Amino acid sequence: MTNGADILAQTLVAQGVDTCFANPGTTEMHLLAALGRTEGLNLHLCLFEGVVTGAADGYARMSGKPAATLLHLGPGLANAMANLHNARKAATPMINIVGEHATYHLACDAPLTSDIAAMAGTVSDHVTTPQAANNVAQDTAAALAAIAGREARVATIIVPNDVAWTETEVPSAALPVAQPQAHDPADVDPAADALRQGPGGLLLIGAPHITRRMAELAQAISDSTGCRVFTEAAVGRMSRGGSAPSLRRLPFHVDPATSALEGVADAVLVGARAPVAFFAYPGRPSDLLPPDASVLPLCPPLGDVETALEALAEALGATCTTARKLAPLAVDAGAPITAETLGAAVAWALPNDAIVVDESITNGLHLFANCGDSPAQHDWINNRGGSIGYSLPVSVGAAVACRDRPVLCITGDGSAAYTPQALWTMARSRLNVTVVILANRSYRILTNEMSKIGAGAPNEFTLPLMSLEDPAPDWVKIAEGHGVPGERVSNARSLAEAVARCMAEPGPRLIEAVM
Amino acid sequence: MTNGADILAQTLVAQGVDTCFANPGTTEMHLLAALGRTEGLNLHLCLFEGVVTGAADGYARMSGKPAATLLHLGPGLANAMANLHNARKAATPMINIVGEHATYHLACDAPLTSDIAAMAGTVSDHVTTPQAANNVAQDTAAALAAIAGREARVATIIVPNDVAWTETEVPSAALPVAQPQAHDPADVDPAADALRQGPGGLLLIGAPHITRRMAELAQAISDSTGCRVFTEAAVGRMSRGGSAPSLRRLPFHVDPATSALEGVADAVLVGARAPVAFFAYPGRPSDLLPPDASVLPLCPPLGDVETALEALAEALGATCTTARKLAPLAVDAGAPITAETLGAAVAWALPNDAIVVDESITNGLHLFANCGDSPAQHDWINNRGGSIGYSLPVSVGAAVACRDRPVLCITGDGSAAYTPQALWTMARSRLNVTVVILANRSYRILTNEMSKIGAGAPNEFTLPLMSLEDPAPDWVKIAEGHGVPGERVSNARSLAEAVARCMAEPGPRLIEAVM
Repeated sequence: MTNGADILAQTLVAQGVDTCFANPGTTEMHLLAALGRTEGLNLHLCLFEGVVTGAADGYARMSGKPAATLLHLGPGLANAMANLHNARKAATPMINIVGEHATYHLACDAPLTSDIAAMAGTVSDHVTTPQAANNVAQDTAAALAAIAGREARVATIIVPNDVAWTETEVPSAALPVAQPQAHDPADVDPAADALRQGPGGLLLIGAPHITRRMAELAQAISDSTGCRVFTEAAVGRMSRGGSAPSLRRLPFHVDPATSALEGVADAVLVGARAPVAFFAYPGRPSDLLPPDASVLPLCPPLGDVETALEALAEALGATCTTARKLAPLAVDAGAPITAETLGAAVAWALPNDAIVVDESITNGLHLFANCGDSPAQHDWINNRGGSIGYSLPVSVGAAVACRDRPVLCITGDGSAAYTPQALWTMARSRLNVTVVILANRSYRILTNEMSKIGAGAPNEFTLPLMSLEDPAPDWVKIAEGHGVPGERVSNARSLAEAVARCMAEPGPRLIEAVM
Repeated sequence: MTNGADILAQTLVAQGVDTCFANPGTTEMHLLAALGRTEGLNLHLCLFEGVVTGAADGYARMSGKPAATLLHLGPGLANAMANLHNARKAATPMINIVGEHATYHLACDAPLTSDIAAMAGTVSDHVTTPQAANNVAQDTAAALAAIAGREARVATIIVPNDVAWTETEVPSAALPVAQPQAHDPADVDPAADALRQGPGGLLLIGAPHITRRMAELAQAISDSTGCRVFTEAAVGRMSRGGSAPSLRRLPFHVDPATSALEGVADAVLVGARAPVAFFAYPGRPSDLLPPDASVLPLCPPLGDVETALEALAEALGATCTTARKLAPLAVDAGAPITAETLGAAVAWALPNDAIVVDESITNGLHLFANCGDSPAQHDWINNRGGSIGYSLPVSVGAAVACRDRPVLCITGDGSAAYTPQALWTMARSRLNVTVVILANRSYRILTNEMSKIGAGAPNEFTLPLMSLEDPAPDWVKIAEGHGVPGERVSNARSLAEAVARCMAEPGPRLIEAVM
């Protein structure tokens, strides 16, 4: 006897999905039973749905294949949406399975009834609701094909309970997957010509995963032409360190970003969109390129970026060389933890093969560059959606995907407070994640942003709304409460040593870095 | 100089809004500045948006007037949505203020861009986006009038950043408010006749706030006719205890609910909807009344329930009497904490004027009835939306609304793990909330539901997805990590004594009740 839920689980496995992060409820009991009895699926319980979807995001970024999520009706999906927003902006493939009332029960408008499809539509590129068990195979296969082919990133399948529990004889299905879009060869020479002009040329790169090879090619192109090279401000995953050139990111804030792009005459976009400001600010532009700059798209977003860069390098006769990097110096004993010493301390501590999930926000000013100059090969994960609370959940998924690699999650305290439940899954699933909480006890970015956006300096009325003092969260206790050993450090040398030690040990650890 | 944000804040205050729960970001800086400088508004910071909206829900239930929330763009709203779902199902009036990119910036599709109106529409009855500063007064007033008149419960106003920061000379506005719908006098006699038949008659009551007077009237009607009386399965707020009759709720689960309604021939609905099952179960009905029962709606949902009950009692010549209640007995020293002893322990400990926020789920079987028989007058708050993680945030708001009353939050450990950040606001705002965590270390309801819904018994694959063991959360540490003193008890007598002591002390306390 095979029901709709079984067919869904079997279709997932047949298409290579092997991991499901879950927070189920009553309407997901048949789905859970089927996922449990289908060989080849690993299930991970998360205590909050924002952890579920963030974990699926991190898993896909590091494994290159989608994870499934299991969510409870509309409110479960709602809790999951902020990290679905982030996943979608990072073009992370993911399939969400959301339980729904039985089809005939919806007319009752029961307490948990809501418009799940409308919710899902705001954070998904592909939404489907099989109306009968016989439709499940085709609808699931279509969703998986769409995310595999990048026609969609986030797919959501809404499964009415009677569809899950009804028997069916329609077997699991597979549909053809589209290949990533290639560049147009006719665009290569004009792009090469534009970059040959030197610093007036800009090579802007974007991709869900910027590989070491892409970085080598981009650096070679810049070396041979003198053009500027940037990646987009945030990259979903970048492989770097060791012999890979350390690419610069376009700055986050509008002022340094426009400065970085001043004088650009021609911008060659390889997998990137023309850069825009994160927020609008009175009197500042929304489009970051100089108004008279011409834009030459060589490869579309989500296209075959590496091949496009190879063609561009070939046209320019650019040759890749290998970067040689020195071990970073240890930070001074007794130096306080600041944005400067944080970068140095982490670069010093970073082991080879590390995965860094970066939500350092105001304290990350030097972190990315310092680690890029490290001889330790590593992967760097950034948030492209801007919704904070992403790094703890994403670290869960990255660690599940790469059991043999240490994960370093560096997060502001304000950000960490959105999804602390991720700590529990780190403990439950024995994940090698070292969490560094940057405890400045403030939404520091807001105290900076307030005057930049013209709303005046923080004052006695507004400052308490940006402060995490009174009481200052005790992150060691919060960690221990979730089953993760914690410690507190208050200078950069101790932080560096703690990071190195914790990453070398199995299982999760939390370090509260008091700033 | 007055900008759109100022006019919004002034319109709120002019219409009686005095409290705003907030988790702002860059796009809310002008709104925050305006809320801060407008006299008569109290701001409370919450570290997660689900706490923001749950707190606004609790505030309105206890104060009878709407609170405002301040949320950061689409993802901030997304995090808020599960408790907006609950608030809307409880018919709680609330106005959400969601910041948005400047109107001209939306075309950039910046990282935090999303379809906020579509998201808001899934959890709001009234959504508006003023497109210019000159529209803010009218749009805000319309939203406030809609929720005050119960045409809408949850209203969401989306404020583009340039609308907030642009100057305007249009002053704050007010619009007329509709009165609650009255019953049709012609319906009273047929309803009275239906109830006179005795137990074949059912009086089913629903209201956002079931007052002591409503309970007295319902009991009098039942005493004079022999009809059955129930409230809906969940009530947003019920004033009870002391001299008020202890009304029964319709059972949550379909089987006891259909048993409770067996033999009902005529159902008189006063502010209630015809009862439906919480979920669909194979072979069980969705509609809970016997198929041949006739339904007599006397007063519509959100109508003037008290007046309708007065009319019904008068038609029946029913006279209210006063319930006399004895102090509950202390539980045996050494009795373990179970659903039975929990009810007895809390009833024993309950002080006069308490507010109980109940998310006890599987352990609440006797709690409600035991406390209803207590001589302590109190208010009882229940979840009508079914999305767990509501009680800690709602307790924040209830305590802000009623500074002089002790709040008791009774929650399952699984539920508490959705919104633990509420603990921090309890500490920050010095709220007299006593949190009891029912630590059965399990989503116990799911282990019950799985076989009921026909998905088989939990097994080695599925049981770990319903278990909170390995590791068991340490709620004392989680509380202390958020600035709330914690303690652990493991028998019913200690629990009762701890509840009584903590509720008598100012400030928040957490008690982990190990079951």
